[in-house]
Amino acid sequence: MNLLAVVAYDGTASPGFQLQAGEPTVQGALEAVLTRLAQAPVRVVAAGRTDAGVHAQGQVITFCIPWQHGLSALHQALNALLPDDIVVSEVREAPAGFHPRFSARSREYRYTILNQPWRSPWLRFTSWHVKQPLDVKAMRQALSYLEGRHDFGVFGRAPQGDNTTRTIIRTDCQRHGHLILVDIEADAFLHRMVRRIVGALVRIGSGEFPPEQMALWLAGQSPKLPPPAPPQGLCLMKVNYQ
Amino acid sequence: MNLLAVVAYDGTASPGFQLQAGEPTVQGALEAVLTRLAQAPVRVVAAGRTDAGVHAQGQVITFCIPWQHGLSALHQALNALLPDDIVVSEVREAPAGFHPRFSARSREYRYTILNQPWRSPWLRFTSWHVKQPLDVKAMRQALSYLEGRHDFGVFGRAPQGDNTTRTIIRTDCQRHGHLILVDIEADAFLHRMVRRIVGALVRIGSGEFPPEQMALWLAGQSPKLPPPAPPQGLCLMKVNYQ
Repeated sequence: MNLLAVVAYDGTASPGFQLQAGEPTVQGALEAVLTRLAQAPVRVVAAGRTDAGVHAQGQVITFCIPWQHGLSALHQALNALLPDDIVVSEVREAPAGFHPRFSARSREYRYTILNQPWRSPWLRFTSWHVKQPLDVKAMRQALSYLEGRHDFGVFGRAPQGDNTTRTIIRTDCQRHGHLILVDIEADAFLHRMVRRIVGALVRIGSGEFPPEQMALWLAGQSPKLPPPAPPQGLCLMKVNYQ
Repeated sequence: MNLLAVVAYDGTASPGFQLQAGEPTVQGALEAVLTRLAQAPVRVVAAGRTDAGVHAQGQVITFCIPWQHGLSALHQALNALLPDDIVVSEVREAPAGFHPRFSARSREYRYTILNQPWRSPWLRFTSWHVKQPLDVKAMRQALSYLEGRHDFGVFGRAPQGDNTTRTIIRTDCQRHGHLILVDIEADAFLHRMVRRIVGALVRIGSGEFPPEQMALWLAGQSPKLPPPAPPQGLCLMKVNYQ
């Protein structure tokens, strides 16, 4: 059976999604459990790779597995055997010709900023702690310059040196108490693109640069783009298909 | 200076609040940092002890420290030196005759239940995962039988065999999406009292016992009280003084 699963994971202890020899990656954990259930090697294909420390709510994977006990039983068996930091929220048959990466119409990422003077013991693995007050309205304006089809080469590199033109479909930046949530949906993302955007965005929110500076960075103008935001604030929320 | 501080901590990695030889307790971490800043031994007195795995948002401590650089500088120095799972949210002078435990009028605890079929990678250290659907209305009714002044000996033991009569001032149980929050305020609590109450409460919420069973348990009637809820769902939210 060719199956599709939606997977959530806490990336804190993970060296990233993708398989690496001898490392406890998310892909490695999923394949180990699937292989154990199938009693034959099972390979997993994912919608996107997430870096070390990056989380996912809605990573989508496919795999082919001989299984005769029903999808609900497989779902339960997966969650019983997977480590505590990975959970499967959905298992179903993959549509014909479906590919988790190539069939994807868009991806939604959320970046969480903790914006208060003191750090939080509970949010340290799922947010970036920024002490100085940030201007969410300026950040929203800055994000608006990124919407549409642009060459985002300044904000990241493409796999295998592909072209760096992408379409940002939607951006948002909202304050909820001490948290600032930055949401970006695009057809596809370059490597570290969201973290580089948020790194720049925080320098605008703090008042160091005006919102228009984002348009100048996008156009490749100086000064140099600030360093990327740290990985733990980032989460792959959802992958959308047709 | 005799100072009062409000401390929040993630109890996940901690063997509890109270000092234990060779163990990385919260009290031990606070005293080590204060001693380093004072360059003389500093002892901490706390409003309440929390067990291993239990969290605090509003633990209150007092300590006496020679310090000449202002309270704001002390506050910043503490947070700079404390480990990431402990944060001080407030530092001020303690009122005359103040004792964090004996001056307390009441304590508020919150117990968080994750009530959905699948576990959550992010809430595993801060909630109890209960799969079967729970009836929040029945749980609220059960809690109401505990309000007022009662002998709670069934729900826990007192330090040094003191009497086990306590006053529960307020209870609440609300569902917020997949989370159920159980709030209990009392003048003081017996050891493991909240966890024992919540352990019983979940058996009522699942329909195994009617709400009235809580009154029977309180009265010491059979069947035996179910096991206590696990520590990671519990958080000391606030200590109230006159």
